[in-house]
Amino acid sequence: MRTANLQHQTDRRATILDAAEQCFSRSGFHQTSMSDICQAAGMSPGNLYRYFPSKEAIIAGIIERHRMHASDDIEAIENAPSFYEALAAMAYQCMVGRTAEELSLGIEVMAECRRNPAIAKLFRDLEDDITARLVKMLETAAARGEINPSTNFEPAATILMMIADGITLRRSADRALDVESMMPLILKMVENLLGNPAAQAESE
Amino acid sequence: MRTANLQHQTDRRATILDAAEQCFSRSGFHQTSMSDICQAAGMSPGNLYRYFPSKEAIIAGIIERHRMHASDDIEAIENAPSFYEALAAMAYQCMVGRTAEELSLGIEVMAECRRNPAIAKLFRDLEDDITARLVKMLETAAARGEINPSTNFEPAATILMMIADGITLRRSADRALDVESMMPLILKMVENLLGNPAAQAESE
Repeated sequence: MRTANLQHQTDRRATILDAAEQCFSRSGFHQTSMSDICQAAGMSPGNLYRYFPSKEAIIAGIIERHRMHASDDIEAIENAPSFYEALAAMAYQCMVGRTAEELSLGIEVMAECRRNPAIAKLFRDLEDDITARLVKMLETAAARGEINPSTNFEPAATILMMIADGITLRRSADRALDVESMMPLILKMVENLLGNPAAQAESE
Repeated sequence: MRTANLQHQTDRRATILDAAEQCFSRSGFHQTSMSDICQAAGMSPGNLYRYFPSKEAIIAGIIERHRMHASDDIEAIENAPSFYEALAAMAYQCMVGRTAEELSLGIEVMAECRRNPAIAKLFRDLEDDITARLVKMLETAAARGEINPSTNFEPAATILMMIADGITLRRSADRALDVESMMPLILKMVENLLGNPAAQAESE
């Protein structure tokens, strides 16, 4: 019974976060009210406030959920048989597969960081976490001989995130952009950044 | 007398655009009113409306000014003795030298594109123009033997803009980011994207 209750709470939180993401992506943080989110989630304010006391708490929940997804994605790359194949698959899934609406929420959060110190703090913590996970992923790949072990992992991880941000931002601003046709060039650039000892050994 | 008048008008327009950029960067488009801009520019509404009839007209003016600056920057690279040195100098100036406030206005415009079709149209036209200018710059560099002539110029130009966007976005969201220390890696990555026949000939 208690497990069922916990599951119910988790589901309700997910429903609210989904609804809020839709609202924020459509109208931005400032033009979205708690009552917009209630309506999109099909819940009464009294009910919604039991899960999230404020819009900031909802944004924190969205950021936390994003952290878990990113961590799962990175773990999947670590456990894949080939680092570059797995990285390419993830890049396609995130950069080509997701709709511009899904991507635009990240832009909304980053734009909000400039004006809201509490959100900026949450964002920096998230970014520090993801950077640390990426560095660990790169160290694992280097230990397996899949990337150059003398790569400077920390700036390389930040550059990977910058490239992802750049693609996201541009796709979000220009819906007609054909990212798919650019992916091979982008992946080749990343391979150059990180090194590929196996490919080099083959060409020698 | 007529020239002096024209100059006066140009100066007044520049003052308004500067004031509007400050306001937009600080508060965003939606939270900035025409009267905020009047106050920042030290002008009466009646006077300001003679130059720009609406907030959209001011945004269009800012985008137009940005187009001219970008065109000047690209021309400077074309006329420089060394393509990669000039590109690196411009990258440092734009990505390291500019304050996060200056950079954040671009993010504001791109975020607004998602909600405002008129701004999205202005932005796409601007981007098409800058892409065309960058492609021309890359063709010139290829003709001089400074980059690989078989580079696919159009996607390469878009990727250059994506990288610049990514750096801008991340610097704007995280003021503590040390972009300067990342620049050598980023420039090396760009060199790999575009090819450097001279460096390759030297190493052979």
